[in-house]
Amino acid sequence: MSDPRGVQIALPSWVDEVVDWNRPYPDARDKVRLVIGLARENVLRDTGGPFGAAVFERDTGRLVSVGTNSVTRLQSSTLHAEIVALLLAQRRLESYTLRMPGRPEDEIATSCDPCAMCLGAVLGSGVRRLVAAASRDDAARIGFEEGPVFPESFRYLEERGIEVVRGILREEAREVFDLYRERGGEIYNG
Amino acid sequence: MSDPRGVQIALPSWVDEVVDWNRPYPDARDKVRLVIGLARENVLRDTGGPFGAAVFERDTGRLVSVGTNSVTRLQSSTLHAEIVALLLAQRRLESYTLRMPGRPEDEIATSCDPCAMCLGAVLGSGVRRLVAAASRDDAARIGFEEGPVFPESFRYLEERGIEVVRGILREEAREVFDLYRERGGEIYNG
Repeated sequence: MSDPRGVQIALPSWVDEVVDWNRPYPDARDKVRLVIGLARENVLRDTGGPFGAAVFERDTGRLVSVGTNSVTRLQSSTLHAEIVALLLAQRRLESYTLRMPGRPEDEIATSCDPCAMCLGAVLGSGVRRLVAAASRDDAARIGFEEGPVFPESFRYLEERGIEVVRGILREEAREVFDLYRERGGEIYNG
Repeated sequence: MSDPRGVQIALPSWVDEVVDWNRPYPDARDKVRLVIGLARENVLRDTGGPFGAAVFERDTGRLVSVGTNSVTRLQSSTLHAEIVALLLAQRRLESYTLRMPGRPEDEIATSCDPCAMCLGAVLGSGVRRLVAAASRDDAARIGFEEGPVFPESFRYLEERGIEVVRGILREEAREVFDLYRERGGEIYNG
């Protein structure tokens, strides 16, 4: 067995080919289009599940970090797209919370409603808004286990000041799920 | 800002001074005593919040990995003790699930009921049992936000074949919370 003392988490090498780091992503559809593109590319490159996420400055639309589902690539059940994006955003800002004095508000966009783990991670991250595309049911339809997320889970976030916007470009995100299924993609937690 | 492309996750250097990797931890109290010890040491060494976790082979009690709360040390809101322990266990076994053909069943012990993120992570990890010490209310009492975890969240895990055992050595775990508060430990998600 290899040394269990350290884990290195990095993005797939193709990310810079498909992400424009310099343009702004001003509205929710721009942001979601980027993360669905990441999900699609993750499927086409065989680097993980059909999910992408990104952290943005909410108002300027400036991109802070991206994440791709890395469960199979990095052999870690916890490395969903949202977790990877949050790890990289906080590393970039050198802060365990995105709510820092003087920092503009941030949001996370994800190509699918967050699973139980990622919903909890969003709450703790300091983002002010969550924007999602596909639904839990869409992910379940191809076999993914989304965990104990209930309507009151989203309300819990909203009551703590996190705006929740779901269903943006849902059909485009579902098409990536279909693509994953057609290609025989692994259902790693079914 | 530093390069956002990679994050290295490793344990604090003191871990090998306090963890005996060679002895077995046969019963739930042995396992919980180890993770409370990790939580206490994490407080005393100023390396993070008052939480520890570990993955064990369930029946032999063989230690697979340990995790310490690393939110402040590694500046990542997602690096709770359970997440770190699961990342390291799966890295050690080179598998994104602990449910592998021919592998004995594994369990995770944690010094506190898992927050919403960690509860979801436990579900996806492949462990067969969750053993916890302090309660959500104990953590909330010193100011920690545990997120949307409901009684049905634990039932959801049980219905999917994960045994849940809570309240083992609860008082000892609470004493570590008190120690953290007395030392002015940071409430990073309050």
